Amino acid sequence: MAFIASRIVSALAPKKSGATLRDMTTREKPAAGPLTIAEIAQQAGVSIATVSKVVNGKSEVSPDTRALVEGVISQHGYRRQKKRTQTTSLIELVFHELEGAYAMEIIKGVEQVASQHDLAVVLSQAQSRQSPGRGWIEGVLARRPVGVIGVFEGLDDAQQRQLHHRGIPLVLMDPTGEPVHDLPSVGASNWSGGLAATRHLIELGHRRIAAITGPARILSSRARLDGYRAALDAAGLKNDPALVREGDFHVGDGLVHTKALLALADPPTAIFAFNDAQALGVYQAASAAGLRIPDDLSVVGFDDLPSIQWAIPGLTTVRQPLGEMAAAAASMVIAAAGGEVAASNRLILATELVVRASTAKFSPSS
Amino acid sequence: MAFIASRIVSALAPKKSGATLRDMTTREKPAAGPLTIAEIAQQAGVSIATVSKVVNGKSEVSPDTRALVEGVISQHGYRRQKKRTQTTSLIELVFHELEGAYAMEIIKGVEQVASQHDLAVVLSQAQSRQSPGRGWIEGVLARRPVGVIGVFEGLDDAQQRQLHHRGIPLVLMDPTGEPVHDLPSVGASNWSGGLAATRHLIELGHRRIAAITGPARILSSRARLDGYRAALDAAGLKNDPALVREGDFHVGDGLVHTKALLALADPPTAIFAFNDAQALGVYQAASAAGLRIPDDLSVVGFDDLPSIQWAIPGLTTVRQPLGEMAAAAASMVIAAAGGEVAASNRLILATELVVRASTAKFSPSS
Repeated sequence: MAFIASRIVSALAPKKSGATLRDMTTREKPAAGPLTIAEIAQQAGVSIATVSKVVNGKSEVSPDTRALVEGVISQHGYRRQKKRTQTTSLIELVFHELEGAYAMEIIKGVEQVASQHDLAVVLSQAQSRQSPGRGWIEGVLARRPVGVIGVFEGLDDAQQRQLHHRGIPLVLMDPTGEPVHDLPSVGASNWSGGLAATRHLIELGHRRIAAITGPARILSSRARLDGYRAALDAAGLKNDPALVREGDFHVGDGLVHTKALLALADPPTAIFAFNDAQALGVYQAASAAGLRIPDDLSVVGFDDLPSIQWAIPGLTTVRQPLGEMAAAAASMVIAAAGGEVAASNRLILATELVVRASTAKFSPSS
Repeated sequence: MAFIASRIVSALAPKKSGATLRDMTTREKPAAGPLTIAEIAQQAGVSIATVSKVVNGKSEVSPDTRALVEGVISQHGYRRQKKRTQTTSLIELVFHELEGAYAMEIIKGVEQVASQHDLAVVLSQAQSRQSPGRGWIEGVLARRPVGVIGVFEGLDDAQQRQLHHRGIPLVLMDPTGEPVHDLPSVGASNWSGGLAATRHLIELGHRRIAAITGPARILSSRARLDGYRAALDAAGLKNDPALVREGDFHVGDGLVHTKALLALADPPTAIFAFNDAQALGVYQAASAAGLRIPDDLSVVGFDDLPSIQWAIPGLTTVRQPLGEMAAAAASMVIAAAGGEVAASNRLILATELVVRASTAKFSPSS
C-alpha cells in the first residue's frame, strides 16, 4: 500500500511550471518512445486489463490506481495499437459553464459544421460530473469522440494531456490562461475591438470614458483593456485608474460598477462594458439614476448577442463572430482528426463595431 | 425495379389519419408477432446484412431499399435479438430549431439529470441533416442512445415509429400537434398561465386587453388563448376578436402586432404576449409610439427567460419552469430505458405569474 502510494506521488509530482504540453511530451519522453498497454501495465505494476480500462475511460478502476496509470502514461507516453480504436461519430463540446446566449451561439456554430460531416455534438460541462472514480474526462475517453472543442476555461492541463495521449484532437475556443500553449485555438481580435469601441467614443467627443472589464485572469478581457488604453493614449487622453473597474461578465457587475462610477466627483460620460451582459447592467443603473441613454450617458458593449439589438435603445457593441469562431473550431478539430496538418495553429477572426443607438455626441450640458 | 417500386409504395401507403402510434402497432401487427431480422429480410427480398444496416442506422443503403425495409418493419414490427444491442451512454436531445434562451434552459435541465446518471447529451436539429440516403434519424439509430427527448415539433410520425421499433424510448417536451398520442410527454399548465396573466390585468382595472398569440397549430399557444378567454368570460368582459392577433413567437411579431393594435380606434390598454420575445416586441412598439410602460400600456409575457428580468421596466410574465420540465423529461426517458413503467404518461408542471414592473393600474386618463 505504501509502495503504491509512493509511486502515485512520484507519478503526480508537479511538472516544471510554465512548461507547455509539447515541452512535456518531448522532454520527458524516454528515447525508447511511448509505451504499449502491456509496458504501461508492467511499469505501473497493474494488470493489462486495468490499463485498458483507464485508457478507454471505463469506470471500474479506483481513483488511486487510475492516477497511478495516468502518471505512467503522462511520463512515458502511450502508443496506441495499430488497429485504431473505432471512433463514434461525435464531437465533444465542453463548456466551463453552460449559460446564456453566448453559449448558444457557439453551440449553433459547432452544430452546423458537425451536421455537414454527419457528426453529432455532445455537450458537457467539464466540472459537472460528480460520480466518484470516474470524472468527466473518463466519460469523454469512453465515448471516443472524433475530437473535443473546449470553450473558455473548459479543460485543465491534466485533461488536455489525457486527450493528447489518446490521439483525440483538442481545439480551444477563446482560450484564457497561459498564452504560450501548443493547442490549436480560435479567438477574436479582442484588442482591435477594444480599440474600435473606445475610438468611437473619443470621436463622439467623450473624454471621461470608463471601462467595466472582465476578470483580470481572462486574456480576452485583458486584450480589450489594452485596446481601450491604446485608443486613449493615441488621443492624448489620461488613463484614469478610477474609471477602470473589474467585473465578472454578469449583468449585476455592470449595475454595481456603474453606480460607483456615477458617484465619482467627476463621473464618466461614456462607459465601455466588456460584454453585452454588463452593458445591460449599465442600462439598469442609468435607469435607476434617471439618466437617459444616450443623451446623458453613452454605452458600448462587446459580443453583439442576438437579443441585444432589442435593448432600448439598441446597444452599440463590438461584434464578436461567435458562430463563425465555433464553426472554425469544429472544422479545425475535424481536420486534425483526419490527420491534416493545419497551416496555422491559431486562428483569429475579426471583430467589428456595430453602431446602434446607445452612443451619442458628448454635449457639455449633459 | 417496378416490383420494388410497388412494394415501396405499398409500404409507404398513408395510414388512416388520426391513428395513434399504439393503434398502428397493435392493429397492423399480425398475430405471429414482430419479425426477426432474417424474417424481415425474407419479406423485403433483401439480404440480412441490408436489414441489419437499416436497423442500426448504417449509411451504405440506398434510400429506396431503406424505405422498403422500414415499411416491412412498420407493418410487422421488429423483434430484437435476445442479446441486447449495447447502448452508448448518450441521451439525444432533439430540437426543431436550436435557438435562443428557451433552448438553453432546456439543454441545462437535461444536462443536469444526464450528468447525474453519467450520461452525455447529444444535441441535434431534426431537420438539419442533409447527407443523402442517411437522414437525421439514421444517425440517432447508429448512436444507440439510451433515449430521445424531442422538443416542440422535433420528430415526425415516421421517426417516432423508427425509434419505437428499436426500443429506444422517446419523451416529448411541450408537444404540439395531435393531442391524442401515447408518447410520454412533459408540459406546463399553459391554460392556467393564460388565465393568471389575464386575471392579473383585469384586477388592475384593464378592460381592453389584447393577446398576441403563438401559431394556431401550437397547442400550448391555444391553451394560453383559452385561459385568456376564460378569464375575460369570468369577468363578464367581451371577447373582441380585433384584440387577438397571431404571432410566431419572435420579437418582430410583437412589434408588428402592437403597432396594429395601437392603431385601432379603441386600442388596448394592456397586452398579453404569449412569449417573452413577443413581449420585447411590444416594448419596441411602445417606445416607438412614445408610450411609457406601464403608465400608458401594461405588458405581460410568458416563459420568464433569465434575461427578461433585465428588460426596462422588468417584465411581468408567466414563469414556465423549462429547466425543471427538461429535467423531468430526462428522468422519464432514463426510467423508461431502465424498463420502469411510469405512473403517468403525461407530466404537467405548474406555471406561475411573476409580477414585476411592466403592469400597472389602469387609469382612464392614460
